[in-house]
Amino acid sequence: MNRTTDAAVPGELAARLLEVAVAEAEAGLAEGGIPIGAALFDADGTLLGRGHNRRVQDDDPSVHAETAAFRAAGRQRDYRSTIMVTTLSPCWYCSGLIRQFGIGSLVIGESVTFTGGHDWLAEHGVAVTLLDDSRCVEMMARFIRERPALWNEDIGVAE
Amino acid sequence: MNRTTDAAVPGELAARLLEVAVAEAEAGLAEGGIPIGAALFDADGTLLGRGHNRRVQDDDPSVHAETAAFRAAGRQRDYRSTIMVTTLSPCWYCSGLIRQFGIGSLVIGESVTFTGGHDWLAEHGVAVTLLDDSRCVEMMARFIRERPALWNEDIGVAE
Repeated sequence: MNRTTDAAVPGELAARLLEVAVAEAEAGLAEGGIPIGAALFDADGTLLGRGHNRRVQDDDPSVHAETAAFRAAGRQRDYRSTIMVTTLSPCWYCSGLIRQFGIGSLVIGESVTFTGGHDWLAEHGVAVTLLDDSRCVEMMARFIRERPALWNEDIGVAE
Repeated sequence: MNRTTDAAVPGELAARLLEVAVAEAEAGLAEGGIPIGAALFDADGTLLGRGHNRRVQDDDPSVHAETAAFRAAGRQRDYRSTIMVTTLSPCWYCSGLIRQFGIGSLVIGESVTFTGGHDWLAEHGVAVTLLDDSRCVEMMARFIRERPALWNEDIGVAE
């Protein structure tokens, strides 16, 4: 499944940019954390910031992959031409970030294991490229199977 | 104007909790920052975390008042009974935070100078108490008048 809105990031560029987010997710997993990675790029694919979920590592519930990448990119005056790339469909927290700051494009590794607000973002003008990357699916599926309580904590699901 | 949904935080408690958020906003202003403050409380009004916007102070675009308060509260297992109190209607980023983590109640100092996603949150089950606090209105109105470029940067409005 590849759902893509108009003016979305071309597939070849999307796949290349996703590699950075996957590397972040793998780094987070190796640290004992939640394997979600993200990166913010300029329109031409220049890296602005990258990061991964650090709930476990920093004991900080506010550091999702997308917010970490956004933070690492520093203060930007205009996000319309930027591309947020994430291994997993962004939760409402991260979707809200993308909408508020007017990030123009979004590339998602997969939304099989979790679906957040990417359809809502597309409705509000974000150019969404949804990939179906098997590494992303397998990494999250295994993590959710092995650490369900931690995963539920990260998405605010009370048990 | 006091718009309140069912099961919202009672007015007297809301006003008392708002004082903490106002103190945070004033602290941010005194530091040369954007005067928005927030605090997260348990249902009985016990403080869990407080904070203010630190875009200027930390040169960090990811620290909005609500995300700072959420972070300061540490990892909580269940947010349903918690109350997010903020001096200003939460932007989409902060509204997304509230929705994703299932924060049950929201108290807002004002939405005169800016309206974010609080109606959307009410539609999705958050008990919203919207106050019309004149200190909050005056603080933000003055800030927006004096520092329009900084304010636009904080809400992602390109110039």
